[in-house]
Amino acid sequence: MSTFQVELKKVVDDSYEIEIGYELQKKLIADIQNGLVGKIKKFAVVTDSTVKGLYADAIVDLLKEAGYQADLFVFPAGEKSKTRKTKEDVEDAMLAKGYRRDCCILAVGGGVVTDLAGFVAGTFGRGVPFINYATTLLAAADASVGGKTAVDTPLATNLIGLFNQPEKVYIDIATWKTLPERQVISGLAETIKHACLARKDFFEYLTENMDAVLNLEREACEHIAEVNCAVKYEVVMKDERESGLREVLNLGHTVGRAIETVSDYQLLHGEAVSIGIVAEVLLAYKLGYVKEQERDAVIALLKQAKLPTEIPEYIDREMLVQKLYTDKKVRDGKLRFVVQKGIGDVVEFSEGVFATPIEEAVAREIIMNM
Amino acid sequence: MSTFQVELKKVVDDSYEIEIGYELQKKLIADIQNGLVGKIKKFAVVTDSTVKGLYADAIVDLLKEAGYQADLFVFPAGEKSKTRKTKEDVEDAMLAKGYRRDCCILAVGGGVVTDLAGFVAGTFGRGVPFINYATTLLAAADASVGGKTAVDTPLATNLIGLFNQPEKVYIDIATWKTLPERQVISGLAETIKHACLARKDFFEYLTENMDAVLNLEREACEHIAEVNCAVKYEVVMKDERESGLREVLNLGHTVGRAIETVSDYQLLHGEAVSIGIVAEVLLAYKLGYVKEQERDAVIALLKQAKLPTEIPEYIDREMLVQKLYTDKKVRDGKLRFVVQKGIGDVVEFSEGVFATPIEEAVAREIIMNM
Repeated sequence: MSTFQVELKKVVDDSYEIEIGYELQKKLIADIQNGLVGKIKKFAVVTDSTVKGLYADAIVDLLKEAGYQADLFVFPAGEKSKTRKTKEDVEDAMLAKGYRRDCCILAVGGGVVTDLAGFVAGTFGRGVPFINYATTLLAAADASVGGKTAVDTPLATNLIGLFNQPEKVYIDIATWKTLPERQVISGLAETIKHACLARKDFFEYLTENMDAVLNLEREACEHIAEVNCAVKYEVVMKDERESGLREVLNLGHTVGRAIETVSDYQLLHGEAVSIGIVAEVLLAYKLGYVKEQERDAVIALLKQAKLPTEIPEYIDREMLVQKLYTDKKVRDGKLRFVVQKGIGDVVEFSEGVFATPIEEAVAREIIMNM
Repeated sequence: MSTFQVELKKVVDDSYEIEIGYELQKKLIADIQNGLVGKIKKFAVVTDSTVKGLYADAIVDLLKEAGYQADLFVFPAGEKSKTRKTKEDVEDAMLAKGYRRDCCILAVGGGVVTDLAGFVAGTFGRGVPFINYATTLLAAADASVGGKTAVDTPLATNLIGLFNQPEKVYIDIATWKTLPERQVISGLAETIKHACLARKDFFEYLTENMDAVLNLEREACEHIAEVNCAVKYEVVMKDERESGLREVLNLGHTVGRAIETVSDYQLLHGEAVSIGIVAEVLLAYKLGYVKEQERDAVIALLKQAKLPTEIPEYIDREMLVQKLYTDKKVRDGKLRFVVQKGIGDVVEFSEGVFATPIEEAVAREIIMNM
């Protein structure tokens, strides 16, 4: 008998830049020409059926004009496309077009596109570089920082995936004007979540400027994009592998993800999260972590943003409660909630975030009666 | 416009131990009890239909006796199972049994099992730990060091996957006696490859002791397992991400992988690699890197090990040559060969490893006439 020690300790640098601005297509091409992804000449542009005609086609043309090989890989728009099957289709199409390891994936779209394309990039040829060109508020709020990529399965959302950092993220605010209003509003849920968990002043800003935000006024949009990145970055910086602190970003998500799934994606992610924030602020209130007026302010801000704050009639409450227990955060069968502490803070993450039987009962009662 | 720098520089320690010995099942359980994977209590034991009854069932029983939750996830034996579909089936079965992020995957089997299970572990819940319990010579030679995990697709082998390091590898030599002779012989191809590219003395040892090896005499097996790990480790240590040096491990593989695919897996991986080694040593001879007697010694040793040294009649040479160009090592349409330099060394890897048009023509002629 003998043993063999494999030493694999090393310094990894996954740093990257997020650029926030208006119409960043030409900046993207210039960055590539200046060596953003080294000498790579082949770009697999991954997008969805909505974003294709709006932005991705034009980016492919710009890449070709600049002398690069670029091909479009398009899948049907919507959360329902975030599957292993779609990943496989994109991979097969890339392989059929001769893409191997010497390529870069360029995701053009919202969170579904960047989540899926980042996952494809992570396993294509055991990893090729990728760039995110984010065209939605939700992608700016949620998908631009953190390196979380994943697909959904019939039994759980976002459970198959990996941590994979892009080479660069572009947040093109000019693209938001082509979003359906419902998508903009959905994106605001993650924005309000960030305010609730880390930025009291931003919560007040949103309360005062919600009209400007809903009208997509440039200054307001830039501010939102920046604060979203800043909050997510602070949290992710401190905990890249989601071992602890990062969990605070799941505020509203334990209930939200379950609602999203049980609604069979009739509710958009942000809409489900909005209802989840309400459920979890009611829980926080019951547990004594937020005052009545704070609870009401959170619900009022969500309403101001035209987000849903009640569980739709068609959702079976029993099924919803059951669904909570298939969440990927469940450990040893115990639920976990991030609990808001006033506005701008959360109850510090610890093992205590696992709900006690009493807390579970309170959560259950809240959901059953919402 | 504003930019945001995401700093993600960190030290990563993926070190692990390889243990080589006889009947290591109880050692495995003891290691887990001693904290090999921390406090994890749930073990998804991934295996194939052949290894299930031989070893995996017993390991599941031992885990249960020790108080752990353990479930078997079995797929049909053979390279043809190394697909995204099998990965999906394992994932869905794990999810259905309630496995989430708080589990460890234990691969029990040969290279196909460890490649597939390591890939599943890399993306399940965005990464859970895994342990390899290797039951074949090939797994000892090929799959125990390096962290390469992958599945095959219709268009290419091993192109979808990721680098993922196990928590520990067990090489149980006692299991080799239940391998069909053809599998043992197939495993010797990678062993001989290691001798050819890095160990002249080991090449001589194999020439002198091939009978003991084929009879699976314990001392010879241990020596083989150790040298295999040592060679692979030396190379991988110097280049974990396969940016350069590690390519030397592809000796025989440019041609070998193409033969394996074109044979529709009628040839085992090692058998195909054996033929690939022959093709590439003929190339090395033509290019003046090996002497006639060295060329003959390599072919003689492969024959001594009862490995095939000629391309089977049923393989279409034209198709085979075309297949070379879909290899994942192809860049800008140029073939790459690792070229043997005498016995125990290779032509140093550099950009020059891309075949020139003349070298491609020579390679083509060799294959057409083998």
